[in-house]
Amino acid sequence: MSDPFVVVGGDAAGLSAASKCKREDPDREVIVFERGRWVSYAHCGEPYFVKGEVERLEDLLSLSPAEIDERGIDLRREHEVTAVDTDAETVTVDGPEGTHDQAYGDLLIATGGRAVTDPIEGADLDAALPMHGLDDAAAVRAMLADPSSFDVADLGGDPYVDAERARRYGAMAPPETVAIVGGGYVGVEMAEAFVAHDVEVHLFQRGDQLVPPFGEAVADAAAETLRGHDVELHLGTEVERLEGEDGRVAGLTCTDGTTLGVEAALVGIGIRPNTDLLADTAVRLGNAGAVAVDDYGQTSVDGVYAAGDCAEMRHVVTGDTAWVPLGLTANRAGRAIGASVAGDLTPVGGIAGTAMLKAFELECGRTGIVDHEEAREAGFDPVSRTITASSRSGYYPGAAETIVSLTADRETGRLLGGTIAGEDRAAVRIDTIATALEGGLTVDELERTDLGYAPPFSPVWDPVLVAAKVLGGEI
Amino acid sequence: MSDPFVVVGGDAAGLSAASKCKREDPDREVIVFERGRWVSYAHCGEPYFVKGEVERLEDLLSLSPAEIDERGIDLRREHEVTAVDTDAETVTVDGPEGTHDQAYGDLLIATGGRAVTDPIEGADLDAALPMHGLDDAAAVRAMLADPSSFDVADLGGDPYVDAERARRYGAMAPPETVAIVGGGYVGVEMAEAFVAHDVEVHLFQRGDQLVPPFGEAVADAAAETLRGHDVELHLGTEVERLEGEDGRVAGLTCTDGTTLGVEAALVGIGIRPNTDLLADTAVRLGNAGAVAVDDYGQTSVDGVYAAGDCAEMRHVVTGDTAWVPLGLTANRAGRAIGASVAGDLTPVGGIAGTAMLKAFELECGRTGIVDHEEAREAGFDPVSRTITASSRSGYYPGAAETIVSLTADRETGRLLGGTIAGEDRAAVRIDTIATALEGGLTVDELERTDLGYAPPFSPVWDPVLVAAKVLGGEI
Repeated sequence: MSDPFVVVGGDAAGLSAASKCKREDPDREVIVFERGRWVSYAHCGEPYFVKGEVERLEDLLSLSPAEIDERGIDLRREHEVTAVDTDAETVTVDGPEGTHDQAYGDLLIATGGRAVTDPIEGADLDAALPMHGLDDAAAVRAMLADPSSFDVADLGGDPYVDAERARRYGAMAPPETVAIVGGGYVGVEMAEAFVAHDVEVHLFQRGDQLVPPFGEAVADAAAETLRGHDVELHLGTEVERLEGEDGRVAGLTCTDGTTLGVEAALVGIGIRPNTDLLADTAVRLGNAGAVAVDDYGQTSVDGVYAAGDCAEMRHVVTGDTAWVPLGLTANRAGRAIGASVAGDLTPVGGIAGTAMLKAFELECGRTGIVDHEEAREAGFDPVSRTITASSRSGYYPGAAETIVSLTADRETGRLLGGTIAGEDRAAVRIDTIATALEGGLTVDELERTDLGYAPPFSPVWDPVLVAAKVLGGEI
Repeated sequence: MSDPFVVVGGDAAGLSAASKCKREDPDREVIVFERGRWVSYAHCGEPYFVKGEVERLEDLLSLSPAEIDERGIDLRREHEVTAVDTDAETVTVDGPEGTHDQAYGDLLIATGGRAVTDPIEGADLDAALPMHGLDDAAAVRAMLADPSSFDVADLGGDPYVDAERARRYGAMAPPETVAIVGGGYVGVEMAEAFVAHDVEVHLFQRGDQLVPPFGEAVADAAAETLRGHDVELHLGTEVERLEGEDGRVAGLTCTDGTTLGVEAALVGIGIRPNTDLLADTAVRLGNAGAVAVDDYGQTSVDGVYAAGDCAEMRHVVTGDTAWVPLGLTANRAGRAIGASVAGDLTPVGGIAGTAMLKAFELECGRTGIVDHEEAREAGFDPVSRTITASSRSGYYPGAAETIVSLTADRETGRLLGGTIAGEDRAAVRIDTIATALEGGLTVDELERTDLGYAPPFSPVWDPVLVAAKVLGGEI
């Protein structure tokens, strides 16, 4: 009998691996150590919980405790793995019952990422929060509630929620004005959530563009949409510090000296992979600073795997490794590793950095390499074109302008990436481009792809085809 | 100066070719002969004109007369090409001014298809119509109008509409009950249009399944949706003849002897390619009975091209020619031929038979080879799986069950085709599968494709990925 499959981290990658391994090899012992209390939750659903469209914290759990039990996974919450010894093939675990060493046969590092807040002074004040985990979401929604009627039980999440923190935020006066520091996914989605609660929102972005991975055309469209919902955008403005009063956020100061009074601040300026645990091990990190893995998710050490927000993956366009922490990647890589550990060697697949974003009524998507500098670094000669086309036949009610930007390599015509934005079924159309990347299509091949046409859903030439046609004309 | 580029047929393929040729080579003379009065109209929009969502006939024109003029195209309406002499390189043209021969340098046959009604006796009665062209659409909508207030001008389309026919139908008492003979695209879409006018609809389908190209799972979902809107389905029931009274449809008789009283009948049992013109020429037809063409749309005769509903195309999955008359195919092939004729040799691309269909609130899609018999004839060993998955994260409002069926070759794992149905952004998801077919992906590769995820638009595992996962598990 081999030593157990030990998983460090009980979120998407970790529990996907644990589940798949148990399903394929029910006799194998699988232990998941999670240092917190939440496991297997939908990080991307947090803004919608704050907004109120998702009612209870437990709605965001992908697997219920009962389901985890049924699968025969030995899940240990509040157990932190503090050291890894790849020679002895053990991990050191700190838990409520003390510290012990656990031997492993296979090991998966699925420690995820953590929100970065330290460049901002005062991020430890009350009413200053990152948005990284269900307890942050619980605190923000508690803060937005009327203190006189707030009941922590309304949030759900019992017994895992940090009730003490939620109660503390529930007792605060709701902010009339909030600063969102960082204009990435979280910032944009949280702007929608705050506006739904009638809070005045100021969104600060150090660079000149929101959601940089989505490129300029989508960023401009998103900015216009946010402004249309009275979100005050402060682009090219870097927040230096949050100012406190009685321990709670009361304002902020930017590097250009401007100040603003706010009663709360959400700091979403980025995440970093959690790799400290591996600092003194033989497990190598990759160029992007996360754990380097091969096509099967195995690290530089035999029998030690990594997946999810702490790991790098092979990019389908560049062929190099890249660090793009996203939900599907974590789930898929975890599942593949679970299968491999159970004896069915399964590649984890590549990533294209495909992502979707909702900015109020605007649906956005991006995939592949769209930044020209990034493309040139990968050895391409990038050329891009941006078009606007109708989402449906122009005569059919509900047709909406859809922006598509495509980037290709001038020499080979190979498609490198694309972005999209529009109000009518725009986001799911990014999957067409993502699939073209997986297939290694050229722009000409994409232009000739037989996509669907029906007046209510797509014009004869789908916006993606229009973009391919225009870009193809330039190559 | 070479002889003109002559185009026979002024619809999607013909005018796309004419436009592209003039744009690339403005000095080339381009003549389009159209035997009717309508050119360049959106056939697929007709049901929505009847329904009333599209207001006027001219809304369905892809190119206005002014645009055609601006492009410098010599368009001759009501000119029928009655003979082609590929040795002399001339066509014989019958027009208002008489008959003449026209020399051509290049020739495009874009004669389209025609509705088949002849298996049904009585299809020439009043209030019995096919749905093939704007004059049919005009007649149906006229018939549905209140005769006391009907004005032919309300339909639009002046001066091209057959006003006499429209007036005749406008004077008829609107039907309370209509029979739709044929459960293909047109039948299903017209059911929605009639229901919107509070007409009782009986839909007859000879086979046991609606919209056969969409496969059983989608057909069942569509049937359920139609029944939910009080459309009476008569599956496995063949209409033998329409019965008349005073020259107008008054009922029908099926081959099983059952009868039904109806006041109108829409006959949509199929179309055939218009190839009679080529009967005595050297231009060869293909296996599917339409004009055979090469990868550039050229027929067996040099300088003679064919495109649109009268032509076959190469199927991207089988590599064989197939006849799948659809709008994008016609537009794209026409455009490519126009470029080639202008000197920029351009492949017409393959077809996958990708199609979308709206059945009330149900969005349907299909692409590739989904019929097992068809797959086996093409040399594959087909295996299919059908799944139902959520269109969004389950906790996000608006998530809808989405049915996806994928078919692959058991030996190679290559994806052969797929179908989809659901009420939330299902139709455009067929493009993901269509693009996978263009890229020649295996089911495993599709499963590993990095599609987008965001709670409002797609769950972590998009329904297409779920289907790939399940089918991949069977191979």
